[in-house]
Amino acid sequence: MANSRFEYVRQFEKEDACLPNCWIVVRIDGRGFHKFSDEHKFEKPNDEGALLLMNKCAECVMNEFKDIVIAYGVSDEYSFVFRKQTTQFSRRASKLMSNLVSLFASCYVFHWKEYINQDVPLKYPPAFDARAVLYPSNQNLRDYLSWRQADCHINNLYNTCFWKLVQEGNCSHAEAEERLKGTLSSDKNELLFSQFHVNYNQLEEFYRKGTILIWKKVDEEIIKLCRSKDSAEETERTVIRTRRKVVHLHTDLIGDEFWQENHEILGSLN
Amino acid sequence: MANSRFEYVRQFEKEDACLPNCWIVVRIDGRGFHKFSDEHKFEKPNDEGALLLMNKCAECVMNEFKDIVIAYGVSDEYSFVFRKQTTQFSRRASKLMSNLVSLFASCYVFHWKEYINQDVPLKYPPAFDARAVLYPSNQNLRDYLSWRQADCHINNLYNTCFWKLVQEGNCSHAEAEERLKGTLSSDKNELLFSQFHVNYNQLEEFYRKGTILIWKKVDEEIIKLCRSKDSAEETERTVIRTRRKVVHLHTDLIGDEFWQENHEILGSLN
Amino acid sequence: MANSRFEYVRQFEKEDACLPNCWIVVRIDGRGFHKFSDEHKFEKPNDEGALLLMNKCAECVMNEFKDIVIAYGVSDEYSFVFRKQTTQFSRRASKLMSNLVSLFASCYVFHWKEYINQDVPLKYPPAFDARAVLYPSNQNLRDYLSWRQADCHINNLYNTCFWKLVQEGNCSHAEAEERLKGTLSSDKNELLFSQFHVNYNQLEEFYRKGTILIWKKVDEEIIKLCRSKDSAEETERTVIRTRRKVVHLHTDLIGDEFWQENHEILGSLN
Amino acid sequence: MANSRFEYVRQFEKEDACLPNCWIVVRIDGRGFHKFSDEHKFEKPNDEGALLLMNKCAECVMNEFKDIVIAYGVSDEYSFVFRKQTTQFSRRASKLMSNLVSLFASCYVFHWKEYINQDVPLKYPPAFDARAVLYPSNQNLRDYLSWRQADCHINNLYNTCFWKLVQEGNCSHAEAEERLKGTLSSDKNELLFSQFHVNYNQLEEFYRKGTILIWKKVDEEIIKLCRSKDSAEETERTVIRTRRKVVHLHTDLIGDEFWQENHEILGSLN
Repeated sequence: MANSRFEYVRQFEKEDACLPNCWIVVRIDGRGFHKFSDEHKFEKPNDEGALLLMNKCAECVMNEFKDIVIAYGVSDEYSFVFRKQTTQFSRRASKLMSNLVSLFASCYVFHWKEYINQDVPLKYPPAFDARAVLYPSNQNLRDYLSWRQADCHINNLYNTCFWKLVQEGNCSHAEAEERLKGTLSSDKNELLFSQFHVNYNQLEEFYRKGTILIWKKVDEEIIKLCRSKDSAEETERTVIRTRRKVVHLHTDLIGDEFWQENHEILGSLN
Repeated sequence: MANSRFEYVRQFEKEDACLPNCWIVVRIDGRGFHKFSDEHKFEKPNDEGALLLMNKCAECVMNEFKDIVIAYGVSDEYSFVFRKQTTQFSRRASKLMSNLVSLFASCYVFHWKEYINQDVPLKYPPAFDARAVLYPSNQNLRDYLSWRQADCHINNLYNTCFWKLVQEGNCSHAEAEERLKGTLSSDKNELLFSQFHVNYNQLEEFYRKGTILIWKKVDEEIIKLCRSKDSAEETERTVIRTRRKVVHLHTDLIGDEFWQENHEILGSLN
Repeated sequence: MANSRFEYVRQFEKEDACLPNCWIVVRIDGRGFHKFSDEHKFEKPNDEGALLLMNKCAECVMNEFKDIVIAYGVSDEYSFVFRKQTTQFSRRASKLMSNLVSLFASCYVFHWKEYINQDVPLKYPPAFDARAVLYPSNQNLRDYLSWRQADCHINNLYNTCFWKLVQEGNCSHAEAEERLKGTLSSDKNELLFSQFHVNYNQLEEFYRKGTILIWKKVDEEIIKLCRSKDSAEETERTVIRTRRKVVHLHTDLIGDEFWQENHEILGSLN
Repeated sequence: MANSRFEYVRQFEKEDACLPNCWIVVRIDGRGFHKFSDEHKFEKPNDEGALLLMNKCAECVMNEFKDIVIAYGVSDEYSFVFRKQTTQFSRRASKLMSNLVSLFASCYVFHWKEYINQDVPLKYPPAFDARAVLYPSNQNLRDYLSWRQADCHINNLYNTCFWKLVQEGNCSHAEAEERLKGTLSSDKNELLFSQFHVNYNQLEEFYRKGTILIWKKVDEEIIKLCRSKDSAEETERTVIRTRRKVVHLHTDLIGDEFWQENHEILGSLN
């Protein structure tokens, strides 16, 4: 069979390699997760299990794609940052996006039961969208991550108020929305404190800051079986092995402190 | 918090709308499925369950994205063709690819147990890559699909020979490879017939042709409860409802016959 | 000197080959030609010499790039259509655009004196911008050209009215603009006829339709010197040679007639 | 006339804005300048007038596009660097390329007579190609310019040898080529010195280094007519005005010195 007669169609495929020497950010986002979280009875404003599941999937992604130097997640979205010099998939945008987002999605289903209440089986398989964005400078990258974390803060403060009003304040959804229209951050903090005795800044950082995943070198004790030259006896010995491991942080990444403490992320050693 | 200070980073996102009036093909491909199929003991050369699972996922994708007019699958790959005039996701390539491939992947895990032998649990979540390719003319599109089906034929004929030699012919992998080196299609047909009494053309079309998914109008009988004006009595009535449904075909799509029989695929009615 | 140390910078260049099997249209446009035509005292609404100069440049471009099958010009813009299968510059958009637009611009200066009144020397070198646009189908291409010719009509009708009002109607620019605000084509035709005794449809097609350049086969008589076998005498003989030549038309290309008469433009023989 | 019916074709135009925060380099290159320089009897290996004409055109381009912070020219090519933050033409690559290259080409014809021997009229209008390339970091940009200057050196050394062999060494073109095959820089320096008593490093920097164009602030004396309050008399007064002006340099830009002396090029003040 003349395969060659048809093979010309390959020429219609387009190169999409990312510009060299730029940070490559792949951001994924749950598709229709408003409905999805309703159907699966996620707690409002934050469902711990659902967020931990997102983090688990992101960690799997990092373990598979070791050139990701930092990831940041909030709600149903996650951003993954490939190091500037990565040659993963020859920097082809479609390959990076599609492999990453499909792995994330299949992890989500795979690990569902470990994180979500046993009473709530997964009703249907979820989809995520993905986009790849390039950032030329370290400052651009930091500003990108700051943008996401600022967004996390704004949304979480709003949602915390909204659901307090609904769950404890006897408001309908429409009334809660109306009550919050046009309010500033300070108004919302005040509302929480005066009406619900909640100090927003004392709520868990997990919800207020989102989750940062980075690599850390950790020392692990491992036990080795050793045999001495002279005897047939085996003895156990504890040895220390250093390896890179993904750690989860819930902290501010807008200020300089985070970047000073974790200078290797932006540093040339990536 | 000044979100706006960071918001400039959105300008780094790039438009990637597909050229109008072109067929959009999204092809997905299992990542590392050689290893994946070994780990999960897929039968060689074709594992019926694994192929049916692929088809199931593809059908879910079509039911979600109704602008897909035809899909074609073989082995661990699947091609989805959006109609020329689709406005799904404003024709943005990343959105089309990522939503589609992530849904496919999460379906794969979700439906695993229904198709794969219960003794073989899913060991790890799979990933797929995806690419979007544009084809301006109907002929280009047909040639694309023909290319994939010709590839299916070439690979399946080779694999059928290879595994016969290994499974029944007492060959090692290397010996089977050596035996097939440089052989033509006719040589392989002959080998199967003379040595293993197999007429390749009588093997199942499912394996030789791959799977084509298209929409067909089907009439369904549904039972309605009806109440007459005069009485409180309800009676059951059978009514016919026409709806579009995905059908699975294993047939030749290289020749004209398929396209004549299913002229609505390329026709303006899509 | 270590050239190789720096050569990595070539990797930053991006592929920009046009999708195969599409018409490639390169449209160029004078930069700041409002000011340019004032400075060079171009007649209003149409300066014959300036338009003929544009046509001359376009013809030079076609003679250089033989894969251009049709060009259409109006005012200070010109569109060039490369045949669908062209491999000129490996279909690279930047190469196509830049070579074409720079040749056009240098022709413009080169041929200035032949077309523009000797009293008006070229004051400064002009620039043009260019863009490349792909059209997958013949209908799309025809609609593109129709769009430009419809634009020509709309602008020329407006400009004809505007300059009549200014030049013969004693209006200031602002008054003429005001007079025409919100008028329909029929109003403008009526205005020209009743106030200036001008039947718009009898004005020269050159101005109303713009200029179409296409290739035509022409028979040329050429004179050859021939020598008979038997004698040293030379005799002149007239022979007919057929060659392709650019012809200029000022006719409607929106209707079917033009495309039927010149069917080779869209036909497979291009 | 229904313009709107055709206007949909505008949707086929593609966005091509350059990634923000990157240096944008537009490099232009003479098309077929080997033949062009033969036809116009340019001196070998370097024609002073032809190079000065290139520089003149580049200066015109810079005066038109003030966001170009540095340009570098050698032979029939020129590179123009737009500052990272430029918003010229909304950073659209086609617009940047086409306006620049067409202006360069029309300048070339416009200024021909001022630079090229009066005996050699311009025989035909030249074309140039252009490409736009993005460089994210200052180091990438410096490496790009170093690449071009290293290329200038390599080619000029070769050409100097080649034409000495041909013009004074009685070699044919083929013999000269053969003689130089496989030689190192040191071999070529030696050849020039021993056979032609030429110290390559003492040849003019104009030819060895190419031309760098940058902006410098210069103080200009201008004469103003002033009138005192009390009298009708006018007096001339010389005042100093500072303005930016393009200066031409022929110096090394590979080392640090140039960039330290002209730190404003890469600095944030651009």
